[in-house]
Amino acid sequence: MTHHDNGPRVGIIGLGAMGLGMASNLARSGFSVTGFDIQQSAVEQLVARGAKGADTPSAAAEDADLLIIVVATSDQTSTVLFDDEIGALTTLPQGSTILLCITALPDYVTALDRRLKTVGRPDIKLIDCPISGGEARAWNGTLSLLCAGHEPDISSIRDVLDCLSSRLHIVSSRIGDGSSLKLVHQILVGVHILASVELMGLCYVAGLDLHSVYESVMGGDGASWLFGQRAAHMLDENELPASSLSIITKDMAMVTEHGRCHRVPLPLSSITHQLLVQALSAAWDAKDDCVTINAYLLTSGTLQDLRQGGSQPRASSNLDAAAASSLLIGIHAAVAIEVLLFAKKLGLDLGVLKEVVQGAAGSSVMFGKVCAQVEKIGKCSLVCLDDFDSISQNMANAIASTRALGYPLFIASTALQQYYCA
Amino acid sequence: MTHHDNGPRVGIIGLGAMGLGMASNLARSGFSVTGFDIQQSAVEQLVARGAKGADTPSAAAEDADLLIIVVATSDQTSTVLFDDEIGALTTLPQGSTILLCITALPDYVTALDRRLKTVGRPDIKLIDCPISGGEARAWNGTLSLLCAGHEPDISSIRDVLDCLSSRLHIVSSRIGDGSSLKLVHQILVGVHILASVELMGLCYVAGLDLHSVYESVMGGDGASWLFGQRAAHMLDENELPASSLSIITKDMAMVTEHGRCHRVPLPLSSITHQLLVQALSAAWDAKDDCVTINAYLLTSGTLQDLRQGGSQPRASSNLDAAAASSLLIGIHAAVAIEVLLFAKKLGLDLGVLKEVVQGAAGSSVMFGKVCAQVEKIGKCSLVCLDDFDSISQNMANAIASTRALGYPLFIASTALQQYYCA
Repeated sequence: MTHHDNGPRVGIIGLGAMGLGMASNLARSGFSVTGFDIQQSAVEQLVARGAKGADTPSAAAEDADLLIIVVATSDQTSTVLFDDEIGALTTLPQGSTILLCITALPDYVTALDRRLKTVGRPDIKLIDCPISGGEARAWNGTLSLLCAGHEPDISSIRDVLDCLSSRLHIVSSRIGDGSSLKLVHQILVGVHILASVELMGLCYVAGLDLHSVYESVMGGDGASWLFGQRAAHMLDENELPASSLSIITKDMAMVTEHGRCHRVPLPLSSITHQLLVQALSAAWDAKDDCVTINAYLLTSGTLQDLRQGGSQPRASSNLDAAAASSLLIGIHAAVAIEVLLFAKKLGLDLGVLKEVVQGAAGSSVMFGKVCAQVEKIGKCSLVCLDDFDSISQNMANAIASTRALGYPLFIASTALQQYYCA
Repeated sequence: MTHHDNGPRVGIIGLGAMGLGMASNLARSGFSVTGFDIQQSAVEQLVARGAKGADTPSAAAEDADLLIIVVATSDQTSTVLFDDEIGALTTLPQGSTILLCITALPDYVTALDRRLKTVGRPDIKLIDCPISGGEARAWNGTLSLLCAGHEPDISSIRDVLDCLSSRLHIVSSRIGDGSSLKLVHQILVGVHILASVELMGLCYVAGLDLHSVYESVMGGDGASWLFGQRAAHMLDENELPASSLSIITKDMAMVTEHGRCHRVPLPLSSITHQLLVQALSAAWDAKDDCVTINAYLLTSGTLQDLRQGGSQPRASSNLDAAAASSLLIGIHAAVAIEVLLFAKKLGLDLGVLKEVVQGAAGSSVMFGKVCAQVEKIGKCSLVCLDDFDSISQNMANAIASTRALGYPLFIASTALQQYYCA
């Protein structure tokens, strides 16, 4: 409990699923932690774990060498920092560090950095540090952190970062790059989720054995970490909720907004975002992102039907597990290029991006292959891929083979267009 | 009744909505007409109008100088022509002309032309002649015809063509070009329909007065012939059915298949096709193409709600009629370029295309403007348009302004991507 007695005193604002886990983990590891949340019950939970509670952001920031912000939105961040009466800046000591662990537009983070200076607090060291990995990894200190900031600032809180994370990525010294990298990674997450849902629905209406499809996809080039998660979830009779529909929708809204700011084409991100918006607006019962299947099946079935399996095919088709895999291969390669081009435009280091994705939710066999080829040939374009012709031809054949099924392939058909544009 | 007594004897196969109108019109104008349909009742209706009925395709073709085919599909065409026992070729006289008035893949039509030769009937003159204009115009002889074939063959049946049509377009001398032009035109039809539906739904959830939106759009650059039709239909309390969902879905399936054959990017056609497939598979009650609104509104309303109007906005937004128009302007310009590039790739004459579209269902203010600019600068690309920056910026602003509404913009967001790709 006491081996960090000489470590930084930590204030933490935002004790939701992630923040409470991070704060509890730090307290358990011996750091002096003071936490604030607008939910008093969250503060009480933290206090029960040996940390101190605060009634206001300013109380959490008082005496803090390091202030960690883990709130949900940019607006909340501005409020907890800059509010005239209870904002953290009213008390935060000179020379403290702010570790900003939110998912936000990079432009917000760079503007925040400037604002600290214009309000007379150039002494504060801001670190742009989006997190990922989910609740369990917050509690056990194995989060992924995407740190961008001045190297000495990062070094000075290294013991805290190491306590929070088993995957600490130093993205760059430029504030905003952490947030950019997080957004770019979320493209892979969003598109892979929808691709998984679309494909499972397709195989369902084609009457394929979904467990065999799962095995076949995961054993080949169509595999992605998220297909493994979401397809398993869709087939799981225990129906444990997976990840929240609203969070990925919010992230993809930021992605597409950032794309518009930079006038970068993000066709797969864009269609994915629209499908998420559609599902969220529908107010369907389930709240996890697999509920997007409803728009694919509409009156012809539900996730529950798919789970029970053994459906008659809607019509005869030549679709088999290999053809289904070829759709994922084509989608994953196309979104890999979409992501790499966007990252390049944003000035991100592709080596760091590759490293981040490999260990994270956005990973896929094809992302790895595309990165390797892009590195080898030094050019980032679908048309330069070794397997360009076979990937696009297999996709086109698979799409043609599903025609009699009358099933919409929003993601796959958008991906195929990218091969023809290339 | 008798002024065409010396004209060609006409056989006609397929007496559906279009074929019966065409055959009746020809009979009324004094041509000798013999009609066949698999529905005996359709044949009886034609006979009641002074034409002859036939029991088989071969009976309709016997003695025909001109055989008109107006069936629904390519498969039906092959059957009525080539069936060993009852096919028209078993009786069709030497040197006769076949006027093929179906909507089919151009590759099918060129293959049919070759097949006539390989089965020993090089004497038959094939004219590739898709039609459009709807049932009423079939009856009163004011159809649009898109004729491709040898000039002397077309001239020899000019009196029949003039009787059928008030808009006879000679597309080219190459069989297949008529069908290509029809498909390319259907891109405008399909995308304009979905754009109209998407926009009306958007304005509904934004709480705008839909009649004002209608007036505003139709008075400006966002106007299209189909917005005029579909938006009016969606607001019409009489709920007269508009055009069939299944027909435009079938046409867009051919469009996207043809795009895949030629490896041409058709992003707006593709997303439109997926939305149509989705709606068709849902087995919603209404069968006209405006039922696609259901996927946009889902649990938050129906076409009936939209018709009743006066809804509370779902959330506050800056969307107004001008911003709504800017979405249509951006979509119509992007699909115009998509169509022109496809037409170019297919070797179609852009002058003829422009002339066909101007008088047809696919017309829009922006299609006219884009054609004029493409002609002027001699280059076909979105980025070359005079108003490129303002169109794309207005679209991006309008899309951003709708964010709080949680409404999916499948067509508009896909269109915006084209400006960023350009």
